[in-house]
Amino acid sequence: MTGGQPTFDPKNPDFETRVRDSFARQPFMAHCNITMPVVAAGYVEMRVDYDRALTQQHGFLHGGLVGTVADCTAGYAAFSLMRAEDSVVTVEYKINMLAPAHGRTMIGRSRVIRAGGSLMVCQSDLYVLSGQEDGASEKHCATALVTLMVLKNTPDAPPE
Amino acid sequence: MTGGQPTFDPKNPDFETRVRDSFARQPFMAHCNITMPVVAAGYVEMRVDYDRALTQQHGFLHGGLVGTVADCTAGYAAFSLMRAEDSVVTVEYKINMLAPAHGRTMIGRSRVIRAGGSLMVCQSDLYVLSGQEDGASEKHCATALVTLMVLKNTPDAPPE
Amino acid sequence: MTGGQPTFDPKNPDFETRVRDSFARQPFMAHCNITMPVVAAGYVEMRVDYDRALTQQHGFLHGGLVGTVADCTAGYAAFSLMRAEDSVVTVEYKINMLAPAHGRTMIGRSRVIRAGGSLMVCQSDLYVLSGQEDGASEKHCATALVTLMVLKNTPDAPPE
Amino acid sequence: MTGGQPTFDPKNPDFETRVRDSFARQPFMAHCNITMPVVAAGYVEMRVDYDRALTQQHGFLHGGLVGTVADCTAGYAAFSLMRAEDSVVTVEYKINMLAPAHGRTMIGRSRVIRAGGSLMVCQSDLYVLSGQEDGASEKHCATALVTLMVLKNTPDAPPE
Repeated sequence: MTGGQPTFDPKNPDFETRVRDSFARQPFMAHCNITMPVVAAGYVEMRVDYDRALTQQHGFLHGGLVGTVADCTAGYAAFSLMRAEDSVVTVEYKINMLAPAHGRTMIGRSRVIRAGGSLMVCQSDLYVLSGQEDGASEKHCATALVTLMVLKNTPDAPPE
Repeated sequence: MTGGQPTFDPKNPDFETRVRDSFARQPFMAHCNITMPVVAAGYVEMRVDYDRALTQQHGFLHGGLVGTVADCTAGYAAFSLMRAEDSVVTVEYKINMLAPAHGRTMIGRSRVIRAGGSLMVCQSDLYVLSGQEDGASEKHCATALVTLMVLKNTPDAPPE
Repeated sequence: MTGGQPTFDPKNPDFETRVRDSFARQPFMAHCNITMPVVAAGYVEMRVDYDRALTQQHGFLHGGLVGTVADCTAGYAAFSLMRAEDSVVTVEYKINMLAPAHGRTMIGRSRVIRAGGSLMVCQSDLYVLSGQEDGASEKHCATALVTLMVLKNTPDAPPE
Repeated sequence: MTGGQPTFDPKNPDFETRVRDSFARQPFMAHCNITMPVVAAGYVEMRVDYDRALTQQHGFLHGGLVGTVADCTAGYAAFSLMRAEDSVVTVEYKINMLAPAHGRTMIGRSRVIRAGGSLMVCQSDLYVLSGQEDGASEKHCATALVTLMVLKNTPDAPPE
């Protein structure tokens, strides 16, 4: 994205509660050590702390995890702008790996770049932190474009 | 891919051992319940059996897992065609989600569609099985195009 | 696409006329020497004969033309399955260039791989022909995954 | 891209001449009315003025043209950072169409986001201008991620 970023008026004032509730109902997030420190209207940030179970053959955080965070941050950035009665599904995404996810923490940030009535498009950027908390440096390790669909009048949970 | 698929002469006759050894050194594969029933020259198949820890908010296998299998099957399909002294890295991939991964097992199949000296391109297709083992039906749940780079004279393991 | 391909029942029996009429109203098609020899339900084929005006700096057919054909064949493959009152728009596509488009003719073939009510996904494959008409060989020069949206109750023409 | 953008030291001080010379040898650029007002190290801008021959069935600039500009701006942004003896080829790209290219002029801007020794990744953004030159407003109509390969010791022209 060049230049400034759009700001959004959320359609659901309780969007943060709704996003956090949905996130908490995804067992795969905890299984992958993924937390969600920031939820704003059209913007979400996730974080993964290193664990050996999450690595690939070189000891870096696994590319599958990088893709997972690219997709999920986008999904919730889009979801944050939807009405309380709608839910979200990923249509497709494309991700470029820019550097190995070699570090103690990975940060994912996604923002909505087009908020349509039926489709939303987000850009997700992934960073790895190396060094210590003071003076850690971020390395841009992946970037993704994600297309999401608004599922109108569809609950974000399985039928009971 | 229209029509028949290319067949390949592997450059390393021990490719299957090399692929299986690399797979075994990826902790994230076991963490995600991923197995690899088939390794052929330019073709790899993986399988994930349902586990609640691997699901998203509707109880389906998580999209991040679908992307992980799309990427990893492609990586090993490409790796199977490389020389014994080379290794592989994912450059980028694009995945279209065609249906929810709603089933007891997901199968991923990837084949090399272009085997260049520096870059390889694979197509990965993902299927979910529903019903019982006898008479189970496969549903096409995702398709991906994956670009991989040959890392020449580079070991597939961290430095000791 | 592995295995067989789906067959489709078109919702509009006059789909071929509708596709050909829309194609004829696109000035850029003639400008780029693009013809459309085959229109079937969920499948479209286009053809471009070499012209120096369509080339890049090495004298091959331009990559922009390859992308154009990947996108347009997909658009009309999807359009062929829509109702007479709907129209189509490309949401996004991803294309891998597999070989230079070095030949006297390029052929593009696209088929629908998922026909949803709101979104369709197509796979487009591009080939260049070299040699003479008798005994010409096809080279696979690009493959693409294209996502298209159904614009319900929307005419395929500008307002008069 | 979040945050600031990288700046680059070009390896070839004459990069602008080299980029402009290559552009001039692409007949498809003039055929599509494409000009290149800006060439910087790792950044290129192209422009297309409306012509009816370049439109699709609704009278907007054709999506194939949007993809062409996304790809070509990226190609030259990458090429600007290469050594004088290397050339560039597009590996793949992915483009999201954000709005119809409905306007009198389209602007494409691409910047390198990763400059590796073998591969480069660029992000291209496309805008349409509507209204008059004074007070025209830009609409973001597409965004793309493009992967390019460095062809080492390869001339940017056909053999004589």
